Amino acid sequence: MATISHKAETMPASAIRKLVPFAETAKSEGIKVYHLNMGAPDIKSPQCALDAVKTNTLDHVSYSHSAGLLELRKGLVEKYYKPLGIEISVPELILCVAGSEALDIALQITCDDGDELIVMEPYYTNYNTFCFMNGITLKAVHTDIKTGFQVPPMEAFETLITPRTKAILVSNPGNPTGTLYSKEDMLALGEIARKHDLFLISDEVYREFCYTDEPYFSAMNIAGLEQNVILVDSVSKRYNLCGARIGCIISHNEAVMKAALKYAQSRLCPPVLGQLATIGALDTPQSYFKDVREEYIRRRDFTVDTLNRMPGVYSPLPMGAFYTVAEMPVDDADNFAKWLLTDFRIDGETTMVTPAMSFYSTPGCGVNQIRVAYILEVPELKKAMHILAEGLKTYPGRIR
Amino acid sequence: MATISHKAETMPASAIRKLVPFAETAKSEGIKVYHLNMGAPDIKSPQCALDAVKTNTLDHVSYSHSAGLLELRKGLVEKYYKPLGIEISVPELILCVAGSEALDIALQITCDDGDELIVMEPYYTNYNTFCFMNGITLKAVHTDIKTGFQVPPMEAFETLITPRTKAILVSNPGNPTGTLYSKEDMLALGEIARKHDLFLISDEVYREFCYTDEPYFSAMNIAGLEQNVILVDSVSKRYNLCGARIGCIISHNEAVMKAALKYAQSRLCPPVLGQLATIGALDTPQSYFKDVREEYIRRRDFTVDTLNRMPGVYSPLPMGAFYTVAEMPVDDADNFAKWLLTDFRIDGETTMVTPAMSFYSTPGCGVNQIRVAYILEVPELKKAMHILAEGLKTYPGRIR
Repeated sequence: MATISHKAETMPASAIRKLVPFAETAKSEGIKVYHLNMGAPDIKSPQCALDAVKTNTLDHVSYSHSAGLLELRKGLVEKYYKPLGIEISVPELILCVAGSEALDIALQITCDDGDELIVMEPYYTNYNTFCFMNGITLKAVHTDIKTGFQVPPMEAFETLITPRTKAILVSNPGNPTGTLYSKEDMLALGEIARKHDLFLISDEVYREFCYTDEPYFSAMNIAGLEQNVILVDSVSKRYNLCGARIGCIISHNEAVMKAALKYAQSRLCPPVLGQLATIGALDTPQSYFKDVREEYIRRRDFTVDTLNRMPGVYSPLPMGAFYTVAEMPVDDADNFAKWLLTDFRIDGETTMVTPAMSFYSTPGCGVNQIRVAYILEVPELKKAMHILAEGLKTYPGRIR
Repeated sequence: MATISHKAETMPASAIRKLVPFAETAKSEGIKVYHLNMGAPDIKSPQCALDAVKTNTLDHVSYSHSAGLLELRKGLVEKYYKPLGIEISVPELILCVAGSEALDIALQITCDDGDELIVMEPYYTNYNTFCFMNGITLKAVHTDIKTGFQVPPMEAFETLITPRTKAILVSNPGNPTGTLYSKEDMLALGEIARKHDLFLISDEVYREFCYTDEPYFSAMNIAGLEQNVILVDSVSKRYNLCGARIGCIISHNEAVMKAALKYAQSRLCPPVLGQLATIGALDTPQSYFKDVREEYIRRRDFTVDTLNRMPGVYSPLPMGAFYTVAEMPVDDADNFAKWLLTDFRIDGETTMVTPAMSFYSTPGCGVNQIRVAYILEVPELKKAMHILAEGLKTYPGRIR
């Protein structure tokens, strides 16, 4: 029997999804599961995006340009990025199959097999997966829950830099931590990139989810670093259009965009119906973002406050995205999360969270941490968090 | 300035699209260009597919399962594959971002960096691109225009097999040649795969475009080879839904599907709106396929007959897809195709074809060949072919 490649055999399975079979078993037994484990919000897509799909007049869903529909590229440049203060031209933006493809292309453009990428841990686990797929070594700068996962001193980055280091990848606000980096943080990261001539890949898919009054500072606006910055963006989170699978890669660097186009051409074109939805989404009123932000602030405040009231639990107050990482008084968060699904119920219900260990490269880190996605309405969150709190009390591996 | 990866720098640009700038210049000068260069047909998508998109009731375009919507996976298994005689279960089918992603995943699952893949030339150029991206060596078995690009004797394959050979990739019917392989051909390829324990990756995206009365024989039906066959499929061509970006990877091999799911999870999910269109497309009446087939037979017959009436031109009669490769009496088909765009017009119109050299690995092959995609209606084809014929007469590099 023909055997699959070593790469496919050893590729890490999605850490976020590996508990899914236990959730499915619970559901098949009639148990209701509150999903705080995925970044899949329950908020409606903007009506203008839904309408653009329903009223489309295509009689043939044919290929678009490999870089996407010109109307959408222009629309994003003029209607979305320009008002944000991100000044780009149309050739500096290529539409991708969501942020996932934009990230994959950014990694392949910057790093050869055996090259190194620097990321702060805890990080989005697929950063690790995409590095694995492309033969790139991920090197992690540790950030600490005790200091709210803030950017550590620059020496922590510099000690990891070798001749094979090609890029720094930053997610701002961050998944899984929800940490929002300040302008000063971004300038400091930019300074390292400049000094060592590295690419700075900035994953800003949660840009619209910031809970401070400080204006958001994009890596695209680091003065003098225009040739080093690659922006990874997506409409999934911004417009609650996760299934549309539209994102983009943006750079002022012409060689980067020329290479990105070659990758884009190899897969022919981004999804056209998702592009139509996104054209519609460009007319989303500011009130939509404001309402969504207010809603997430309510959810965050409730979630983080509730977590911190649980004995032995600590969560920082994240200023962005819709996640928080919390330290739990448990022996092993992996076991705890699994136990909630297999053994613990209140009135036929349980809660699913994500163990945080796979968000770290450093051995032993995150063993007692979980990621909570506050993507349900407060009344639902209340029930989910109650189950978590009660579960913690009776979990056999609880550390007292 | 940070420099891009060697891989990105040296990645081949799309050969099919590299003449596009010349076509764009011609168009900007008011010249009408007949596009016989791309597999982008002008035929309408099935009404049921368009309606499924327009009447959708989603208020939130959220993620689907990474393997795709269960309704669509079940629908394909029951309504499409089963009536065709391809018996699979739902876990044996994972929805992908079109055939392109299905192919990329199939290559990554079967071949490690440095492994070898055997393909018949001329081949779809992106086979080469995907191999390049994944560090796989493409080894080409030559097929000849004089014998209608038929499968050569098995020794031609066996002499290329080394310990690093992991798979044979076949496109049936073939792009760019339109060659349809018989049941005997497929069994012979299967026999080599069995003997050397290779995967047989069968790209069957043009399955609905066969112009003989012989029943189509899928690699999935090679008895005893269930663990070696991986099917790559797509709705792009079948339903004229190229922009929907929905395809799938299918295999009876459990390890293959388990690995495919890991890849699928890393990019979260296939495009949901395209999945809705495909659910609708499952109700496409057989008359749609019949009409499309009849239309292509008319176009093919006209195109191939017209080509062969041109002095010095030879095209076989392809029995599938909507392409043919023709030998032209020119010094260099690359120059000829470019010259048509830059220098030759009849009444302000010209024709765009694809030079075939990049479809070959063997040096010197295909230099005087072009691929013609007969994707326009006959009256349009008539004008396009007239321009081609007249252009041939005056082209400075014509060989007499």
